[in-house]
Amino acid sequence: MLMNYRVILNVLGTVIKLLGISMLAPLLVALYYHEPDSIRIFAASSVLAFLTGLLLEKAFRTEFEELSLRESIVIVASGWLMAAAFGGIPFVLAGLSPVDALFESMSGFTTTGSSILPDIEIYSKSILFWRSMTMWLGGMGIIVLVMAILPRIAVAGRQMFQSEAPGPMKDKLKPRLKDTAQILWWVYIIFTALEITLLYFAGMTLYDATVHTFPTLSTGGFSSKNLSIAAYDNFRVEMIILIFMFIGGSNFNLFYRTIRVDWKALIKDREFQAYTFIILFSTMVIALELWNWGETLTRSLRFASFQVVSIITTTGFASTDFSLWPESTKFILLLLMFVGGSAGSTGGALKVVRVVLLMKYGAREIYRYIHPKMVRPIRLGDTVIPDDVMQAILSFSILYILVFLGSSLVLSMLGLDFMTSISASATTLGNVGPGLSTLVGPMANFGSIHVIGKLVLILNMWIGRLEVMTVLVLFVPSFWKK
Amino acid sequence: MLMNYRVILNVLGTVIKLLGISMLAPLLVALYYHEPDSIRIFAASSVLAFLTGLLLEKAFRTEFEELSLRESIVIVASGWLMAAAFGGIPFVLAGLSPVDALFESMSGFTTTGSSILPDIEIYSKSILFWRSMTMWLGGMGIIVLVMAILPRIAVAGRQMFQSEAPGPMKDKLKPRLKDTAQILWWVYIIFTALEITLLYFAGMTLYDATVHTFPTLSTGGFSSKNLSIAAYDNFRVEMIILIFMFIGGSNFNLFYRTIRVDWKALIKDREFQAYTFIILFSTMVIALELWNWGETLTRSLRFASFQVVSIITTTGFASTDFSLWPESTKFILLLLMFVGGSAGSTGGALKVVRVVLLMKYGAREIYRYIHPKMVRPIRLGDTVIPDDVMQAILSFSILYILVFLGSSLVLSMLGLDFMTSISASATTLGNVGPGLSTLVGPMANFGSIHVIGKLVLILNMWIGRLEVMTVLVLFVPSFWKK
Repeated sequence: MLMNYRVILNVLGTVIKLLGISMLAPLLVALYYHEPDSIRIFAASSVLAFLTGLLLEKAFRTEFEELSLRESIVIVASGWLMAAAFGGIPFVLAGLSPVDALFESMSGFTTTGSSILPDIEIYSKSILFWRSMTMWLGGMGIIVLVMAILPRIAVAGRQMFQSEAPGPMKDKLKPRLKDTAQILWWVYIIFTALEITLLYFAGMTLYDATVHTFPTLSTGGFSSKNLSIAAYDNFRVEMIILIFMFIGGSNFNLFYRTIRVDWKALIKDREFQAYTFIILFSTMVIALELWNWGETLTRSLRFASFQVVSIITTTGFASTDFSLWPESTKFILLLLMFVGGSAGSTGGALKVVRVVLLMKYGAREIYRYIHPKMVRPIRLGDTVIPDDVMQAILSFSILYILVFLGSSLVLSMLGLDFMTSISASATTLGNVGPGLSTLVGPMANFGSIHVIGKLVLILNMWIGRLEVMTVLVLFVPSFWKK
Repeated sequence: MLMNYRVILNVLGTVIKLLGISMLAPLLVALYYHEPDSIRIFAASSVLAFLTGLLLEKAFRTEFEELSLRESIVIVASGWLMAAAFGGIPFVLAGLSPVDALFESMSGFTTTGSSILPDIEIYSKSILFWRSMTMWLGGMGIIVLVMAILPRIAVAGRQMFQSEAPGPMKDKLKPRLKDTAQILWWVYIIFTALEITLLYFAGMTLYDATVHTFPTLSTGGFSSKNLSIAAYDNFRVEMIILIFMFIGGSNFNLFYRTIRVDWKALIKDREFQAYTFIILFSTMVIALELWNWGETLTRSLRFASFQVVSIITTTGFASTDFSLWPESTKFILLLLMFVGGSAGSTGGALKVVRVVLLMKYGAREIYRYIHPKMVRPIRLGDTVIPDDVMQAILSFSILYILVFLGSSLVLSMLGLDFMTSISASATTLGNVGPGLSTLVGPMANFGSIHVIGKLVLILNMWIGRLEVMTVLVLFVPSFWKK
């Protein structure tokens, strides 16, 4: 079957056009704060993106039908790449090299939060606003966003929805994709408004509240401060952000179901239970280690809970420099980088449900080794997990580990130390943000890494956000053949 | 089905009895070198083991039938544990604590090569002879050894053979297990004699040649020198040991087939090709890194080739202190610790064939993601890999990784640094030997680790040698129920 390049380029045009429109937001910020350089930057970027998008849309006007799997994959994968590329233009105009700009922008849209900026605070308010806003746009999914706005694309987009949505089993809340996409975005917007309000009343300026809310709910983790959340040293701010990171790492479908269908939906959900349990357990262990290390008990609990939630949800905010913590706590944080948030959340990495099912699979296989003839399906609550879903989880996990090992190896061969290599690799692939060594830790940045290393990390973020397959298939020659 | 404990205890008796007999070898060494303390130690240990074994054999005399899977698992798992326990008695009598003695003995029988002895050279020649000899006994498999000697057990032992033999697909060379076991042992003995002779002519004493041959072919890695092979600084010795480590990490069945059936069997074998390729490639990369680090090119090649072969075959000999090498080379060595030797070799870890099949599985799954309806079996050369074999490889790998992560976490919570925790965990689970940090590196030892850590590492060696399942099922309650 031939690939329909017209429809691909047409949808890409729409994505880029909408990106141009969304740059009006930082333009308004620049106007409000009288930042003449940034006004020029965002005016130029916005017009460039809008016109490029419009041109593509018009040049490849086409009828929409249900897209094939291959077409959907190309649209989703290249859509994210184009968003990162065009979204990075303001950074290039602000003086970054193209690779650095792509790094920062890909880190934003994929809600990773790794940065190459040595000093964040020298940039204008509107630039940092856009940097945070890319996370908010990417958080719920670029394609889902487009579908929510343009039903025309939602009609054709079942496969695209599947390729972008995080988690092993895709939950369609409504028969029509447009409705599902709109519900998800409304939940997201309501939480956003709520968090901005709360942070404002906790003492942040409206600007700071907004710039930190975008990367909280999207579990992105960019801050406008070099010291991240630690810059505020405000317990109420930390707790509000902690709660909304926790929400960002939960399944958004469940919130809708809890409100509209069954008020127990959330607490009855096995993944949500496991997610909560892992957080409580890890917090306890790390807090004890910090206490033992010499922190007071209250500070241990405060820092441990914030960092555990920040890492498992793949946000990456820091309320203290945890790259200086004892190594055993960092080992737990490294494991949490692989666990990630819930399916259907804005969090990255393997996702809690996959980790739970992998454990259950391990236990089942031990059982099967003794009773080879017994059929014992894997269950999650009342649900029997179909074999093909379990197979997909296994192959996803194996490929995830292979990509992790491969990129760690490249980084290590570029001369980086062991902890830097593996934590940089894990943190970008899981869309977390900071690494665990002082070189790439929460108070440091990725700017000093060799350009080849940066490209590998950009690739990691892209692969991680689209859950491996959607990007890896692009490198298979037979994908492009007739 | 009830478990037949009579037959289990009977076979265990035989294993322990034979162990007592094999202790006559170090007793002879002690007599030859006039070591009065060691004469008493080995006389006592030998008699104790022999009588215990005999008592069990006689008390639980029984008729042999084909054993059930569960009985076979219990025999193999507890057989190895008993061998380690009784084989450790001479170490206890020589002054070690029971846990340390079990560590050293388990490390020997499982051909791991991790040691808790801070100073090896203070021990008598006969003690160190026994320490090396445990590796030689464990190398080809304790149960295989028993079967080769006692056909009575071989008749009932198909399942035991399966539980002990390394690799995903078990190769029965001959219809009768006794014949297979004997062939394997004859190949092993011939190589042993050859290596002792060559090392002797390369300048070692007969004692040193023997004590280093045992841990070479069995890919164990104990040395009688604190500095391991580096103590000799003899290029010919290194090359001989390198070649025999390479042999030890190859499939022993293939040697037999090559000589008796098809002289191209070895070089046509896909696993052997991959094994050779990984060694050459890793050697090249590490040699370049060492050269770049400041070593001369010839020394870089010499050390890199020796260490790569030593680690991938899971031997663990050291010709230099590689814990001081640049971190990128250590990362490659860490990966090689997971690869391990070939199926049907004396090497440990995942085995080359499993790693190759995991990669092929990953590639196949990417392909299937694009072409969901295409059936594309996984092939190794001309062989189609059955689905259940692939499933077993997946579950093995997942469980292997889970055990690795779990034990690393425990070590790290005992206060060990990151590199020590993960490399100690990987090296014991893969039956390699030395870790990659200076604390547990090739010129150091595991003596300083907390007793809980030592117990975890002992468990790792046991789990690793019996390829995970055979030990893990013992911890499943339903295994012990009717």
